[in-house]
Amino acid sequence: METRITDGNAYKQACPTRLALDRIADKWTVLVMGLLESRPRRFSELKREVEGISQKMLTQTLRDLERDGLITRTVFAQVPPRVEYEITPLGRTLCEPIAAIRRWAEVNINELMDAQSVYDARR
Amino acid sequence: METRITDGNAYKQACPTRLALDRIADKWTVLVMGLLESRPRRFSELKREVEGISQKMLTQTLRDLERDGLITRTVFAQVPPRVEYEITPLGRTLCEPIAAIRRWAEVNINELMDAQSVYDARR
Repeated sequence: METRITDGNAYKQACPTRLALDRIADKWTVLVMGLLESRPRRFSELKREVEGISQKMLTQTLRDLERDGLITRTVFAQVPPRVEYEITPLGRTLCEPIAAIRRWAEVNINELMDAQSVYDARR
Repeated sequence: METRITDGNAYKQACPTRLALDRIADKWTVLVMGLLESRPRRFSELKREVEGISQKMLTQTLRDLERDGLITRTVFAQVPPRVEYEITPLGRTLCEPIAAIRRWAEVNINELMDAQSVYDARR
């Protein structure tokens, strides 16, 4: 029998939940998963739509998401080969929480920037 | 008049929302805000409860959260001075989204670890 974690607690340094949180609570994960939520996409599409992500960072993000079972990578045998990334059922359960984070940032950006101006002016 | 952002879009590299997302979608932010949600805390309490966070990282995280208007820092004039961090009303609106992320990690950690084992075994 494998060890099952029945009391995941991200506040514990040694709990694997901490690592999972590190992976999920990441801006690139939030942005990539937000795109894959609507439909599968190719690497080049993701690269274009997540403005400013480097080839290396996108590759790493996709590999981590695949390893975590949140997306699948499918190679279609054609010339040139087509590679598609698709969200899994487990990945889909993460969409609502991360969409909420993204929406929060988009809705509250002005309040954040106002707060930053006030803070900076005090210093 | 300041510029107001009326169409925040974190997929745009130049949109300030991208920076906000980077700040919020961060494991330390998730863990610190999760503690401050219930009551104000002192630096030493946060340091103890967020296991493994370094002095430097906690200092930086708290400074960023204060600058973003998500927490306040209050110094009480006593000997030795007591410094408390407290969530703001704006910060409170972020609590539910980040709690959902943390809960997701804690609930799905076994599925993630299973997926990782399968992935690693294939390589």
